Amino acid sequence: MSDPTELGVAALVAAYAAGRLDPVPVTDAYLARIARDDGTLRSYITVAAQTARAAALASRGRWLEHRPLGLLDGIPIALKDNIDVAGMSCTAGTAAFRDRAPDADAPVVEILKRQGTVLLGKLNMHEGALGATTDNPVYGRCMNPLRAGYTPGGSSGGSGAAVAARLCAAALGTDTLGSVRVPAAYCGVFGFKPTNGAIRSDGVVPLSVTFDTVGPLARSVADIELVAHALLEPPARNRAAQRELTSAPALADLRFGVPLQLGEVDMEPAVRSAFARFLDALRAAGAAVIPLDLSPWHPSMTRRAGLLISEAEGHLYYAEQLGPGLPGLSASFAAMLRYPAQARAARIVAAYALAEDVRNACMRAFSVVDALALPTAPQMSFPHEIAAPENQADCTALANFARGPAISLPFAADPLPIGVQPLAAPGGDHRLLSIAAAADRLLAPGHF
Amino acid sequence: MSDPTELGVAALVAAYAAGRLDPVPVTDAYLARIARDDGTLRSYITVAAQTARAAALASRGRWLEHRPLGLLDGIPIALKDNIDVAGMSCTAGTAAFRDRAPDADAPVVEILKRQGTVLLGKLNMHEGALGATTDNPVYGRCMNPLRAGYTPGGSSGGSGAAVAARLCAAALGTDTLGSVRVPAAYCGVFGFKPTNGAIRSDGVVPLSVTFDTVGPLARSVADIELVAHALLEPPARNRAAQRELTSAPALADLRFGVPLQLGEVDMEPAVRSAFARFLDALRAAGAAVIPLDLSPWHPSMTRRAGLLISEAEGHLYYAEQLGPGLPGLSASFAAMLRYPAQARAARIVAAYALAEDVRNACMRAFSVVDALALPTAPQMSFPHEIAAPENQADCTALANFARGPAISLPFAADPLPIGVQPLAAPGGDHRLLSIAAAADRLLAPGHF
Repeated sequence: MSDPTELGVAALVAAYAAGRLDPVPVTDAYLARIARDDGTLRSYITVAAQTARAAALASRGRWLEHRPLGLLDGIPIALKDNIDVAGMSCTAGTAAFRDRAPDADAPVVEILKRQGTVLLGKLNMHEGALGATTDNPVYGRCMNPLRAGYTPGGSSGGSGAAVAARLCAAALGTDTLGSVRVPAAYCGVFGFKPTNGAIRSDGVVPLSVTFDTVGPLARSVADIELVAHALLEPPARNRAAQRELTSAPALADLRFGVPLQLGEVDMEPAVRSAFARFLDALRAAGAAVIPLDLSPWHPSMTRRAGLLISEAEGHLYYAEQLGPGLPGLSASFAAMLRYPAQARAARIVAAYALAEDVRNACMRAFSVVDALALPTAPQMSFPHEIAAPENQADCTALANFARGPAISLPFAADPLPIGVQPLAAPGGDHRLLSIAAAADRLLAPGHF
Repeated sequence: MSDPTELGVAALVAAYAAGRLDPVPVTDAYLARIARDDGTLRSYITVAAQTARAAALASRGRWLEHRPLGLLDGIPIALKDNIDVAGMSCTAGTAAFRDRAPDADAPVVEILKRQGTVLLGKLNMHEGALGATTDNPVYGRCMNPLRAGYTPGGSSGGSGAAVAARLCAAALGTDTLGSVRVPAAYCGVFGFKPTNGAIRSDGVVPLSVTFDTVGPLARSVADIELVAHALLEPPARNRAAQRELTSAPALADLRFGVPLQLGEVDMEPAVRSAFARFLDALRAAGAAVIPLDLSPWHPSMTRRAGLLISEAEGHLYYAEQLGPGLPGLSASFAAMLRYPAQARAARIVAAYALAEDVRNACMRAFSVVDALALPTAPQMSFPHEIAAPENQADCTALANFARGPAISLPFAADPLPIGVQPLAAPGGDHRLLSIAAAADRLLAPGHF
């Protein structure tokens, strides 16, 4: 039998359904691969071998009886270490929470367990989800599987690395200003940020209640869809028929808006040219590609406002949990959380007001285009040894301000992959995934 | 001919279409009624008699040729005096803006003008839209047409009073924490707050960019629908079919959630019993009425958080417009705007974080109920001479936090009307109006 860790979520479901594969050896293969490779990668903080094997065994029984609990039954998935699983340590990447062991599952974990998912363990992350290199001072410097010594991005860096290195079939991360999509881009995988609130984010150690979302990383749009559709909340009752409307779109019927403000981003030439090739491919497929002025969105200003809000809301949480001295946080994390307390209240209010104005600008754009298209990060992955560029979230924070869904699709560039990112209006999650599937078929020849 | 000011929007459109009435005498009748009654009511700040007559004359020509510009062609509408109309004074109810004359129309005004609407003038309001009595120190104490010396509510008090007194066919107000719905309830008319951003609120003197919305007040749900449907932005392209789904619902198919937290509101007995009668009527019509825990929503705490955010964001705007001394604002308005600057930044951040948590609680509720049902204000209108109760917005601020649509329907109580208020999930505006039409048929025997 070939190595089952090479199969993604969709291929595994098909193999389980056909009786060609069994969750037990699949889980064992993942655990063996983690044991072999994660010493260098440091993508896991906790490996839950025993409970994973037990879950796999139970899943095998259900598949043998042709009675799986759901499409994710027996699929080995891992979770960023800020998502609560009852009885499993949940550190949020900080020493302060080294012994934190929640006694209840986060709602997303309840859903996964109800589906019979095999939880392989908890993944490394940037401390407190505030940062995008996953050079974690306590749980290890997480590596990009594509190149030794390079960052996987962050804050869900362990999720990006584990998916790319085939150490899980899919992972959940969290995205406040780009924390699912940046590691997806750096590691050459797919990462989905849903509409705020569309996937429940309670039971997750928060950074910013305004911006936090939970989303999957995986190896294909189809794999993302299988996980996302399981986790997305049912639509409001008075929009119950919306799901039926999301038939697969033809690219020739779609309009993509490209913000003029991308010109303000200090982008690596390889990212800019790969993104231009993506737009060319959309045009060649008959899609309309429309330059749009998204004022008052300005990438760096918006990212800084998002950071200020995240730090301020993060401070609220950590000060309540740990007390004002913030014991157990690294000096740099604590300093970031304390920064807004020194700022004038008016500056924080202005940041929230900007968020609202940017959201309104996006809503107006979405009345004329189906999706916005942006690169995911302005740069490819870089060595841990160099200082992280400030602008990693310049292109991702927009979707957090807009509160709508976005997905990072991997695209070949030289020498490492980049991400391209369609964004849609809040509530258009299922539709955006259909658009992404269509767009991804264009990228496939250039997949990393 | 009977008095045409007794006809609402829908009846006027029908009469124009049938050639039974002509916008010129209708407009003249409104202007005559304003001249006769508004000396005591003080609902108008500016009466635009000349431009209104010119618009009516142009509209007459179009109706004679059976080529109206839209369903609002020739309908006499008035606007709260914080909505910009080119060349017309726009005071936001404050002396500071006595000479403010914008040179461009707000987007909502552009839409009304494109439809051929007759703009009668600009309506009185609580200073700066921050308060709910419309006892305006500069432009006059606006009176409730239902009882001499009583408040029409606010901040869109002039809009409520003018609609109730038949001094316009419909009005636009703005709603930050309840400013459309409270005056609708006190004056016995209908008032609609849309999904945030669903009706454009740029070109309006802001109070809080996070919470501000623009919405109509009118004499029936049908009249509200005619104005609202003209103003609501087209849905995002990827939700284009949503409008088609809003067929009229049967009450027997609907589920209404009633927050347990209403028990915390200090409510007048007449309001509580009228609201209970409304719920009884829903049940009798076959609707499910479901008690819900909306934690962390707590009415007074949420209202105070909303006030803090509104004051902070309002301060941002007025300090930028007027300078830090806030010249031209009344002492009490200036003091309210300055209040958050003295608060710790963490308190403001906590208010924004609470807004997000409340919104998430509402979204979870909307996955099990079609609408929430609340009274509009905890009290009936009261004399201007007594101090305004603090809790006027306890039941209305919820929709501003949830960012979804809400409509206040008038219902008879003793001795003055109250409002009952269905709320729906963001984006469900058309559907909520259909629900309101169905619910209103139950209330009709008890209409004030």
